[in-house]
Amino acid sequence: MDRQEIEFVRGALEEYRLFFEDYLSSSVALRKKGVPQKLHEAMEYSLNAGGKRVRPALCIAAAERCGCLRQDALPMALGIEMLHTATLIHDDLPCMDDDDLRRGKPSNHAIFGETLAVLAGDALLAMSVEFPLANSNNIKPQRLIRAMQIFTGAIGPSGVCGGQVLDMDTSQAAEDPDYVRHVAELKTGALIRASVLSGAALGSEDEQTLCCYYDYGTHLGAAFQIVDDILDVTSSAKELGKTPGKDKDQGKINYVLAFGLEGARRIALQESALAKESVAKILPEDDFLVRLPDYLAERTH
Amino acid sequence: MDRQEIEFVRGALEEYRLFFEDYLSSSVALRKKGVPQKLHEAMEYSLNAGGKRVRPALCIAAAERCGCLRQDALPMALGIEMLHTATLIHDDLPCMDDDDLRRGKPSNHAIFGETLAVLAGDALLAMSVEFPLANSNNIKPQRLIRAMQIFTGAIGPSGVCGGQVLDMDTSQAAEDPDYVRHVAELKTGALIRASVLSGAALGSEDEQTLCCYYDYGTHLGAAFQIVDDILDVTSSAKELGKTPGKDKDQGKINYVLAFGLEGARRIALQESALAKESVAKILPEDDFLVRLPDYLAERTH
Repeated sequence: MDRQEIEFVRGALEEYRLFFEDYLSSSVALRKKGVPQKLHEAMEYSLNAGGKRVRPALCIAAAERCGCLRQDALPMALGIEMLHTATLIHDDLPCMDDDDLRRGKPSNHAIFGETLAVLAGDALLAMSVEFPLANSNNIKPQRLIRAMQIFTGAIGPSGVCGGQVLDMDTSQAAEDPDYVRHVAELKTGALIRASVLSGAALGSEDEQTLCCYYDYGTHLGAAFQIVDDILDVTSSAKELGKTPGKDKDQGKINYVLAFGLEGARRIALQESALAKESVAKILPEDDFLVRLPDYLAERTH
Repeated sequence: MDRQEIEFVRGALEEYRLFFEDYLSSSVALRKKGVPQKLHEAMEYSLNAGGKRVRPALCIAAAERCGCLRQDALPMALGIEMLHTATLIHDDLPCMDDDDLRRGKPSNHAIFGETLAVLAGDALLAMSVEFPLANSNNIKPQRLIRAMQIFTGAIGPSGVCGGQVLDMDTSQAAEDPDYVRHVAELKTGALIRASVLSGAALGSEDEQTLCCYYDYGTHLGAAFQIVDDILDVTSSAKELGKTPGKDKDQGKINYVLAFGLEGARRIALQESALAKESVAKILPEDDFLVRLPDYLAERTH
């Protein structure tokens, strides 16, 4: 990518992030009557801890391109970010990756303790579904149900939760290429794809269109995880905002450990190209979503 | 209640249980491609660990009485039981109640370890929403969305998760009657009410009818928790299927500790009477749901 293209994608991502965070901060999502004060604090701490907000951006961008008003995709986007936040809280727990650092700040359990961290994750998981269901009055009911099916199908035992189980299982051969792909597909790919596809489903029922976004999300998700694995090896804690080099120390599944650094970089570029190809027929070549895969494949944090 | 009434309710509950468990065991819910074997085992272990299946019975019974076919309420009922199971798994964790016994068997983490128990709970929570969304084709979309809103609203930070946070907070005055009621309402009442009300919403949009079921579920949920608290004091581990007397040992919120044994019994009967009164206008006096509150208030395990 040349500098101009990079600036274009960075600018668009930043615009989506601000649009989303404006909604997040003004949303009454977490200010419900009857929520215990400590739980509220723990949920809000992690939800407001920053991050690139890539998943909400994907959801909103796909929704817009399928004819849904961008503001009507916000509840779904917030649900997805709540779920993502929930998984980060649980992933950092002492009985999981046992990490005290997340996005450059103390992780949730390091501040609020293990008990509250488990329950804050549970509560965010529950709200990730409740919130879009309760706040999407402008979406046709059939479309909302389809989008929610896509989303919830990606977070359960054959999605994010299943991926985390495999990721924690260090008895498996971390070098088996097929296995590495499978774990990444569940752990990260499923939710990246669901972010795109649920957004698209809010605005369209056209199966061919949805199929394009399905493929796009699949390859984008793969590229995203590979770059995460590369950064785990090549970055400092400051750049990464979390403890680097942990995968190898913990015997975890990782693209770099399976394919080497250059091999992983090559696959990331292949997946990025496949993602672009998936939407080549339905989007102009200078579209944000078409340029995003290369941008994410080349990111350094 | 006389013996005949008791036998009638017991028989009806047993019939609902068998109807539900037949669906549970034949359901492909947990046999999805791509679910890690160990996760599947952990989820199935707790889901098949028995229990009275009161929540599914409430959901199906309310749905039937509102004009929904009983088989069409099964996915919603299974979702509710999955969620209930998820909360039991997380409640038993070492960082929560730290209980090795549940329903007379080793609790989930005692068999599968803490890591898998957290993830099995997360996965069941996710599936509790995915499953009814993906398997309720015979329900009108608007009704399904309403029922799912009711359900998911009961499990988040102002429902079950919030209740567990308060329940774990032993710094609060366990004797404050209003506080005891509030914690019980969130911890147990919200899901009991949602079981009834989501079932009703599958079959009806009539606000007056739904209002009756709302009140019914509220009072039934209160009675249910009070009797749980009474049994915690008066039962053996064998009768209870879990460790008795733990509330006092752990400084937990409890109706008996706040109102005394006789006081708690009196309130349980009051709540039971209010539950019956709530549906007196819409159900015959010999209906299962009308007789159920007294039956549950008098239960001994």
